[in-house]
Amino acid sequence: MKEKPIRVDYRTDKKTKPIIEDIEFGREFTDHMFVMDYSFAHGWHDPRIIPYQPLTVDPAAMIFHYGQSVFEGMKAYLSPKGDALLFRPQKNIERLNRSNQRLCIPEIDEKFVLKAIKQLVSLEKEWIPTKQGTSLYIRPFIISTEPYLGVASSQQYQFIVILSPVGSYYKEGVNPVEILVENEYVRAVVGGTGEAKTGGNYASSLKAQEIAERNGYAQVLWLDAVEKKYIEEVGSMNVFFKINGEIITPALTGSILPGVTRDSAIKLLKHWGFKVTESKITIKELIEAFHNGILEEAFGTGTAAVISPIGSLVWNDEKITINQGKTGELSKRLYDTITDIQYGKTKDPFGWSEYVDKALIK
Amino acid sequence: MKEKPIRVDYRTDKKTKPIIEDIEFGREFTDHMFVMDYSFAHGWHDPRIIPYQPLTVDPAAMIFHYGQSVFEGMKAYLSPKGDALLFRPQKNIERLNRSNQRLCIPEIDEKFVLKAIKQLVSLEKEWIPTKQGTSLYIRPFIISTEPYLGVASSQQYQFIVILSPVGSYYKEGVNPVEILVENEYVRAVVGGTGEAKTGGNYASSLKAQEIAERNGYAQVLWLDAVEKKYIEEVGSMNVFFKINGEIITPALTGSILPGVTRDSAIKLLKHWGFKVTESKITIKELIEAFHNGILEEAFGTGTAAVISPIGSLVWNDEKITINQGKTGELSKRLYDTITDIQYGKTKDPFGWSEYVDKALIK
Ligand SMILES: Cc1ncc(COP(=O)(O)O)c(C=O)c1O
Ligand SMILES: Cc1ncc(COP(=O)(O)O)c(C=O)c1O
Repeated sequence: MKEKPIRVDYRTDKKTKPIIEDIEFGREFTDHMFVMDYSFAHGWHDPRIIPYQPLTVDPAAMIFHYGQSVFEGMKAYLSPKGDALLFRPQKNIERLNRSNQRLCIPEIDEKFVLKAIKQLVSLEKEWIPTKQGTSLYIRPFIISTEPYLGVASSQQYQFIVILSPVGSYYKEGVNPVEILVENEYVRAVVGGTGEAKTGGNYASSLKAQEIAERNGYAQVLWLDAVEKKYIEEVGSMNVFFKINGEIITPALTGSILPGVTRDSAIKLLKHWGFKVTESKITIKELIEAFHNGILEEAFGTGTAAVISPIGSLVWNDEKITINQGKTGELSKRLYDTITDIQYGKTKDPFGWSEYVDKALIK
Repeated sequence: MKEKPIRVDYRTDKKTKPIIEDIEFGREFTDHMFVMDYSFAHGWHDPRIIPYQPLTVDPAAMIFHYGQSVFEGMKAYLSPKGDALLFRPQKNIERLNRSNQRLCIPEIDEKFVLKAIKQLVSLEKEWIPTKQGTSLYIRPFIISTEPYLGVASSQQYQFIVILSPVGSYYKEGVNPVEILVENEYVRAVVGGTGEAKTGGNYASSLKAQEIAERNGYAQVLWLDAVEKKYIEEVGSMNVFFKINGEIITPALTGSILPGVTRDSAIKLLKHWGFKVTESKITIKELIEAFHNGILEEAFGTGTAAVISPIGSLVWNDEKITINQGKTGELSKRLYDTITDIQYGKTKDPFGWSEYVDKALIK
């Protein structure tokens, strides 16, 4: 796409900003949104920032029937000096394009989209909450809008970015959660769409999550769909274990979402001198490590919670309690370091943090 | 839901009806649509028939992000006497509710929804094309509309029915197609959503279908996701084989959509005295049957094409041509019998056809 200027249609009736303590993740949205259209004839075109508003979509639009869609999730953070920061945003935009490839959606211009996101965040900067642990959640997504009931790739799409201020994930401090190992339902399978961030994976996961919650668990631990023994993810997070001083996380074998936080945790852990192995690990091996007294920590990684310690795991009739149900040292260190980088409070040895405004001017 | 009357808001500016020869499946829609809302507080409510129109949906609505949706596909046919007929509509509505269960969507009142569909079809009766092989396609679907970015079941939904006149599937007569056996991508897996009619399954299937088409194949034959050897479906159809005078179709093991046409074909074949086996069958067994000269016919079954004969199958480097690439006798007999029942042209020993209007009056 040629570098077109982004048309801006400002909102005049600004919303009142919510009290950050009261808001739940993903319920409140800012004043503006970014929109860009795709047609077969014109490619991606008409990029614009407009007041946040409902979409007008034909009931025959393919998104309502065949789920052809992708999305991303990232955050803008406010530094102590009041600068808006993004955390490794190119990683999310690259992943969006990888998701596009799997879902047969035309790729976006990554540089342009990053610029557009920065412009939108910059415009909505007042919406970034200032309190410790809060941020502005950024949700880019693409939907197939052609009104056609044939099962085929859509020839029309909309790329949209909406923003939602979010309170601290851990209101009462980081609390390790209880996890159910899921034996019946699966999230994804090799050859399917598990590597992509697309609606169907999440729709598929609702049932198991609902049953787990009803039984008092926070999340499910997903096993692979083929042999039902390899550990894949936990809820909507990647998963890590510290066993006998070493770190292990499931390898990206095709049905696991390659998390940005996962990648960051691996890089940091190696930087600190830990041995990190990406490989298959069975639930049985994990339970054995527990019985041998060498399972030291377990935690999930993701943009929402950053690090989510696992307090206990229930598999069939057995329950194992990890690190006495308390947040492990390493989980804490990772959480503190990553969030400090995200908020621009510490040296950023990897150059992961990006200024929203400085980048705009250059 | 209490039996509420369906509010009707008639369209005054009626569309011109398309010339049936020119229309492609799923591109043209009738004057009206049926809509009903769900909220946690009121359940399914406000059933109404309104002019066909775009939906107004919040950009944060869950359908755009997490794909929580289900749909159905059925048809209305015009009998020689001019009556509108439905073919086993309760089967579709029951399946919609089974899909709802898997996708954590609140169930609909099946009797009421059948009544609503009949009322809509009756109102749009002029839209049912009269030519042999044409029909009015009925697309009921449910979308999750709550504006919320948390990964959880939506607390708001819309149930919608739109209608689309469709020309004959076989414009130049029934032509057997060439099929590619897919080894890399999968459609569904046990524990996933393959048994349900939900968008994610179709989004997942686009990539393989696109590659197959690019290489000159009409459809792909899906193998199971676990062992990559059992035959599951062909494109968006169930699949049948005639081997040594007997019929075999893959058993419904959890990743296959239970087709209404599949069920009808099984019942008819048994009625005619054939031995029909629902069981696992590997692609290797099928190729062996071919080499032993006992693979007599292969065909797909589905609402769109009814019966779609398979002319040849390509698996890895081998191509097998079935029944010399011609439509088999049994395929023809099934096609003729099912369509004759659908159009009310023959005795209906199973009571599969249902009058749209008669049912309305009782
Ligand atoms: C299924 C799934 N796995 C893992 C993750 C973690 O990815 P990231 O660290 O990029 O947020 C997410 C959330 O984005 C997810 O939805
Ligand atoms: C994946 C899939 N399999 C099979 C079928 C055939 O089902 P039916 O005979 O009910 O149309 C369909 C179409 O509805 C389908 O989408």
